[in-house]
Amino acid sequence: MSSSEHIRDGDGPLAIICGGGSIPYVVADAVMRQGRRAVLFALRGWADPAAVERYPHYWTTFGQMGRFRRLAREEGCRDVVLIGYLVRPTIRQVRFDLTTLRLLPRIVRIFRGGDNHLLKGFAGILEDQGFRVLGAHEVAPEILVPEGTLGRHRPSARDLADIDRAMHLLAATGPFDIGQAVVVADHQVVAVEAMEGTDLMLARIAELRGLQRILLPPHSGVLVKAPKPGQDRRIDLPSIGPRTVEAAAAASLAGIAVEAGGSVTADFDLMIEAADAAGLFVYGIRRGRVGE
Amino acid sequence: MSSSEHIRDGDGPLAIICGGGSIPYVVADAVMRQGRRAVLFALRGWADPAAVERYPHYWTTFGQMGRFRRLAREEGCRDVVLIGYLVRPTIRQVRFDLTTLRLLPRIVRIFRGGDNHLLKGFAGILEDQGFRVLGAHEVAPEILVPEGTLGRHRPSARDLADIDRAMHLLAATGPFDIGQAVVVADHQVVAVEAMEGTDLMLARIAELRGLQRILLPPHSGVLVKAPKPGQDRRIDLPSIGPRTVEAAAAASLAGIAVEAGGSVTADFDLMIEAADAAGLFVYGIRRGRVGE
Repeated sequence: MSSSEHIRDGDGPLAIICGGGSIPYVVADAVMRQGRRAVLFALRGWADPAAVERYPHYWTTFGQMGRFRRLAREEGCRDVVLIGYLVRPTIRQVRFDLTTLRLLPRIVRIFRGGDNHLLKGFAGILEDQGFRVLGAHEVAPEILVPEGTLGRHRPSARDLADIDRAMHLLAATGPFDIGQAVVVADHQVVAVEAMEGTDLMLARIAELRGLQRILLPPHSGVLVKAPKPGQDRRIDLPSIGPRTVEAAAAASLAGIAVEAGGSVTADFDLMIEAADAAGLFVYGIRRGRVGE
Repeated sequence: MSSSEHIRDGDGPLAIICGGGSIPYVVADAVMRQGRRAVLFALRGWADPAAVERYPHYWTTFGQMGRFRRLAREEGCRDVVLIGYLVRPTIRQVRFDLTTLRLLPRIVRIFRGGDNHLLKGFAGILEDQGFRVLGAHEVAPEILVPEGTLGRHRPSARDLADIDRAMHLLAATGPFDIGQAVVVADHQVVAVEAMEGTDLMLARIAELRGLQRILLPPHSGVLVKAPKPGQDRRIDLPSIGPRTVEAAAAASLAGIAVEAGGSVTADFDLMIEAADAAGLFVYGIRRGRVGE
């Protein structure tokens, strides 16, 4: 079945389980523009209350699988999208309802691994409950970052070589289910993202440069983000936005590169505007073709 | 030629090019206990002046290759050891003398890559100048971390599994010449060291735990350090010490594991004392055998 069949109107309302950031609302807006109803299941603590209020919604927490199933069925939702920024909960933080409690051994297993493992496990549970899990980019393809040089500034040959090295490193670390981002400058790996997330990784580079602990020329280095190899692309595609540009500029990088069609953004125009103003390039890497 | 032949007294005085930290002086003391003269070439900005004063020494900077060659020859040194903590200089910081200037194209090449690449290149230049580059552990084997459980506390089965995962990750990232350390907790990769160094990586974990951005039970996770695969072991073996234990305790880890015989320490007894007091294990991983 093609993804265009997934999103046809006849599939009924779409349930969006939403974490933090602005991307869940961009997805909801895109879905509603297609004439499809979107129902938000907002994760308490992550989703932004002011934004959530603008849509049909329910507040929920981790572990309320029975409640989610009941409400989503009442709403007529068969399709589910999981989207938005999420700090991994501990298993102790999960408030269990009865359905979830029955799934406990399986939940304990999905908690033992990286984020991708956790989300994949959660998606599997949803599917076994009769839902169909779709990628946010399948219902709202406009959030995908396109290919090539996307703003006014272009990557240099050296930047392209750094991007190539970064993509190879991400391919090597992928099986370990760690972060989806690295920074490479002049062939040197400056930083590797794990649990801290992209923004904090970039803040560290800015700090180390300030302390002269990283001695690289200013305005050098590339932030590269890409999905892990073998990653379930329906969940957890890497995302960038204006805030990423700000953090990359503060770290004095030359630019940002992401896998075209394998990364999402909520605010494409604002992001490019910010990059143009800061003198940074934003580059969509063609899948499987780096350094061209 | 075996390493024991390398260190025989008849080889003349040993030149020690020394960076920061206390390990250069432990090596110098060990060499002198063997009845061999040690001459320090202290890198200005990195070596500790108070410590350097206690030994025959010259102050030097990067790029004074001609001066080093002249002085080392006058001292009768054929063997050279490079040891101590060093923040990578930029090529602009190198003050060039004439000999170094002639080597410039080669030096530019060694600067384009990770630290191992840089040090290997520097060692190659020394050898072409007629010196013999030895590993600090070849002249002072007592600095090598031994095998097994080294203090009062032992790694659990889960810790050993985390160590195993960390060693596999380090093997995968090794070809990219990045840091030699990672932290794994309950099968999840918490942090990967690149240019920030081990202490700052551990400080980040402490901070993220404080901010509840990493939600792991306290006193879990293992810091694992190992040489990169294919690394020239004469230079830049990973090191640990009491400060590492302090930083690991502040990050609320369960322990520290390093490759036995492939990692060095300046203060073994102090380190174990600190680990015992903090409730951390220190474990020497047998090379090629993890998780036993």
